[in-house]
Amino acid sequence: MTPPFTSLDSFRAVLAAQPDVDTSARTAAAARNGQLTKPPGALGRLEDLAIWLAGWQGREKPKADAPQVVIFAGNHGVAARGVSAFPPEVTAQMVANFRHGGAAINQLSKAFGAAMTVHALDLDHPTADFTQSPAMTEAELTKALTTGWNAVDPQADLLVTGEMGIGNTTSAAAIVAALLGGAAEDWVGRGTGVDDHGLARKAAAVHAGLATHAALLSDPLQVLRCLGGHEIAAMAGAIARARAERIAVVLDGFICCAAALVLQRARSGALDHCLAGHVSAEAGHGRLLAALDKQPLLNLGLRLGEGSGAALALGIVQGAVACHSGMATFAEAGVSGA
Amino acid sequence: MTPPFTSLDSFRAVLAAQPDVDTSARTAAAARNGQLTKPPGALGRLEDLAIWLAGWQGREKPKADAPQVVIFAGNHGVAARGVSAFPPEVTAQMVANFRHGGAAINQLSKAFGAAMTVHALDLDHPTADFTQSPAMTEAELTKALTTGWNAVDPQADLLVTGEMGIGNTTSAAAIVAALLGGAAEDWVGRGTGVDDHGLARKAAAVHAGLATHAALLSDPLQVLRCLGGHEIAAMAGAIARARAERIAVVLDGFICCAAALVLQRARSGALDHCLAGHVSAEAGHGRLLAALDKQPLLNLGLRLGEGSGAALALGIVQGAVACHSGMATFAEAGVSGA
Repeated sequence: MTPPFTSLDSFRAVLAAQPDVDTSARTAAAARNGQLTKPPGALGRLEDLAIWLAGWQGREKPKADAPQVVIFAGNHGVAARGVSAFPPEVTAQMVANFRHGGAAINQLSKAFGAAMTVHALDLDHPTADFTQSPAMTEAELTKALTTGWNAVDPQADLLVTGEMGIGNTTSAAAIVAALLGGAAEDWVGRGTGVDDHGLARKAAAVHAGLATHAALLSDPLQVLRCLGGHEIAAMAGAIARARAERIAVVLDGFICCAAALVLQRARSGALDHCLAGHVSAEAGHGRLLAALDKQPLLNLGLRLGEGSGAALALGIVQGAVACHSGMATFAEAGVSGA
Repeated sequence: MTPPFTSLDSFRAVLAAQPDVDTSARTAAAARNGQLTKPPGALGRLEDLAIWLAGWQGREKPKADAPQVVIFAGNHGVAARGVSAFPPEVTAQMVANFRHGGAAINQLSKAFGAAMTVHALDLDHPTADFTQSPAMTEAELTKALTTGWNAVDPQADLLVTGEMGIGNTTSAAAIVAALLGGAAEDWVGRGTGVDDHGLARKAAAVHAGLATHAALLSDPLQVLRCLGGHEIAAMAGAIARARAERIAVVLDGFICCAAALVLQRARSGALDHCLAGHVSAEAGHGRLLAALDKQPLLNLGLRLGEGSGAALALGIVQGAVACHSGMATFAEAGVSGA
C-alpha cells in the first residue's frame, strides 16, 4: 500500500486522523470476563489485558496467534564519538545474524510464533553526527518513517518493533531529554555496557546535541529529525501504521519507547494502542515509561534491544488471550457462583 | 514406579537422599552464555535462568518443550467454618471443568505446550476440620504424598504443581503460620474473595488450629498432617519426586508455596530445584517467597491458583531456554566483540 504521507506535514495529518478503540467490543469483552469460571479479578492484569486487546481488535474474543516482530537497523554518526562498547560495524554484522537466525530475537520470535522481518536502513549512510548538524534531512526522515509504515503486516494481530544500531541509546537519550527535559546525565545509560568514560562521552554528546538544535526542539518531529536515527524513525512509522490498522503494539525498551514518545508528543493519545512489554535495565527506561503512563508487564533486567523484551512479553499476552477467549463460563461449566 | 516410601519416616529418608545439581553442566552453560551474540548480561534474568536449568537438567543446552502441569484437588473440613466465598461443591465442579478443558489452567497449559493431568483426591472425604482434630491421619497423608509422587512424568523437562480446593488458603495460611511464626492475621488473605467477616473467620480458624496442634508443630511433616489438605500434601509429594528426577519446578502461588515450605523446613535445600513463577495478590505470598529466598519471575496480580501463575511463567522459561540453546556465538556469527 502507498503510505498516506509524503512529508512530515502529511505524516502529522495521519497522526491527527488516527482511529480509536472499539468501545462496544471492549464492553462485550468485559461482560464475558465477568462470566468466566474464576473468582472476579483472579487473573489480575491478564483480565485487563484481554479486554483492552478486544477493544483494539474490535472483537469480544481477541487473538494473539499471528504476532509480527519488525526489526529496524541503522547507523549513527554520533557513534564516532566513542559512545558504545561495540564498533559500528556490529550493526551490519548483527543484521546478518538476524537474517541467519542466530540472534536472541530470532529465538524469541520463534518461541512465541511471531513472523519476524528485518529492515536495514541505509547502513552505509549513517545519520549525521547530531552534535554538529541535524541527524537527518526531512527527506531522509520521511523515508525512514515510510520504511517503518510499510513494514507492518495489516494481517498481524500484535506488533513488536525492535531495533539494532550501534550508538542508538545515545540518540534515544537525546530525544528523551529534548522532549521530557532534565539533564543529559538523567537519560544516558550503559547501553551495551560502556564504562564511566563512555557514559561521560554519551552525556557530553547529548548535551551538545541539545545545544546545537535548541531552536527546533519544541516540535517532536524535528526532535526526531535532528537527534534520531533511521531505525528510531522507522519504529515511529511502524507504531503509527499499527494504529491505523488498529493493531496493538507491545513496546520494547528505552530506544523503542523514545520513538513512541515522539508520537505521543506529536499527538496526545497516539500510544493508546500500545502497552509496555517490559522495563529494561537501561537507566532511564522506568522514568520514560512513567512519562508515557505505561505499566510494564515484565521486569527481568533485560537491556538487549532487538525487541527482545517485548517479544518475551508476547507470551504473557498470549496467555491472557488464551484464558479470555478459551475459558468456559460458569453457566457452560455448571459451576456454582460465589 | 513404586514410590520409595510407605510412611512419613521413609518419606523423610527420601528427602535426605535427594540428588543435587550437576555443576559441570551448569559451568558449561555459563561458558556458552558468555559466547552468545549479545552484550554480557544483556538478557538479564533469562541468562541466570537458562544456566540454572542447565544444571538441573544436566546438559549445557537445557530444554523446555515438554513441561508438565499436575493439578491436585481436595476438600477441606475447615470449609464448613465459612472461610471461602464459594461453596465446597465447587471443588468437584471445577475438577469437571478441568477435565472438560474449560478452566484457566487448561488454556495456559495449551498455550505453552504443557501436558496437564488432574488428580482428584477423595473429594467425598474432606480432611477433618483442623480446628478440632488433625486434618489427616498418617496413612492419609502418606497416601496423598504418594499420589503426588506418582503424578510426575519422569520424561517432563519442567513441572508446575497446581491445586483446587475450597478452603485451602486457610489451610495454607495455618501451615505457613506454624512454620514461619507470626499471627494468624499475618498469613490469611482474601483467597477467592472473602469479605472482612470471612477474613476474620479465616484468622480465627488458623488461630484455633495452631492452638489445637501446638504440641506437634515443631515437625514440618506433622504440620502438614495436622493443618494441611490432600492436595497440598500431593503437591509436596510431586515437588519431591521432581527433585528425585532432577526436573525443575516452577512454583505457583500461596498454597503451592506453603506445600513447598514444608519440604524446605523438613530438609534444607529441598527447594533448590524450584523457582518462583510469580508473586500473587494473596496477602502473604510475597513474604512467603522471601522466606523461601525465591525471587518471582512475574508480578501480575494473579490470585487464582490452579498453577496458573506458574504456567504463565513457563513462557518466560521457554524464552530463556530458546535464547540460550538457540543463539549463535560471536564466532559462529562473525560478530565483533566489545
